[in-house]
Amino acid sequence: MNNRTKLMIAKPAQEVFEAIVDPAKIGNFWFSSSSERWETGKTIKLRYEEYDAEGEITVTDIVKDKKIAFEWDYGNIHNVTITFTQTDERSTVVEVNEDGFVENENLIPVLVDNKEGWVYMLTCLKGYLEHGITTLRAALVHG
Amino acid sequence: MNNRTKLMIAKPAQEVFEAIVDPAKIGNFWFSSSSERWETGKTIKLRYEEYDAEGEITVTDIVKDKKIAFEWDYGNIHNVTITFTQTDERSTVVEVNEDGFVENENLIPVLVDNKEGWVYMLTCLKGYLEHGITTLRAALVHG
Repeated sequence: MNNRTKLMIAKPAQEVFEAIVDPAKIGNFWFSSSSERWETGKTIKLRYEEYDAEGEITVTDIVKDKKIAFEWDYGNIHNVTITFTQTDERSTVVEVNEDGFVENENLIPVLVDNKEGWVYMLTCLKGYLEHGITTLRAALVHG
Repeated sequence: MNNRTKLMIAKPAQEVFEAIVDPAKIGNFWFSSSSERWETGKTIKLRYEEYDAEGEITVTDIVKDKKIAFEWDYGNIHNVTITFTQTDERSTVVEVNEDGFVENENLIPVLVDNKEGWVYMLTCLKGYLEHGITTLRAALVHG
């Protein structure tokens, strides 16, 4: 079982890719901090200050400006693949595919919450890259 | 079975409510057009120009600046309730609750797609109200 989300961002693939892998940029739209630049084989600590949460990911594959693959522990290990497809000189379709959801009694809430997270992150990323807005993130209210 | 999504928007409840019910504003963050002002008992035609799609909703209850309830046909009739809770003079928590999902073999994709739609709409609404951005919408890529 997987979740797949695709959003068009009016920027070249290189800029979209950099926003995710560069720890100086991630806090503008997603986690508040990333411990270092994302590179294949590295373990990265991600912190979400506003929710006092942190976790680690292991980057399994990076193809510059084209693909980022990583694993994270989501109860069990999930594989996330983010691909960047530049459709013209100014537009990139970003696709996130997360795989590894276990078919148990929590499957539905886990899938739905995961979808919430990716749609939100991608829309905040679009706002950041297209308009320089850094205050869309950290506004989801849980509970 | 229901979907519930909550987002904080740094605007008074009155402004958030108006963005949805006023047909001059909806095209900045959600559907491209709404046939008239949303009021209790009215049937409103909503059009999504970019996806060449349109549908109707029936507004079942409006409490000015506090609540909007409507029904739409989602294969079967779903009830959507949007509530606006102003938490201080500049902030409002918008909660969308959609109810009526049928527990059949399509439940998971229907719930996940529905969640995608609400998270996206609310984030676009936040971008529009807080920053005047009207170009976040209509960028989800399907298929």
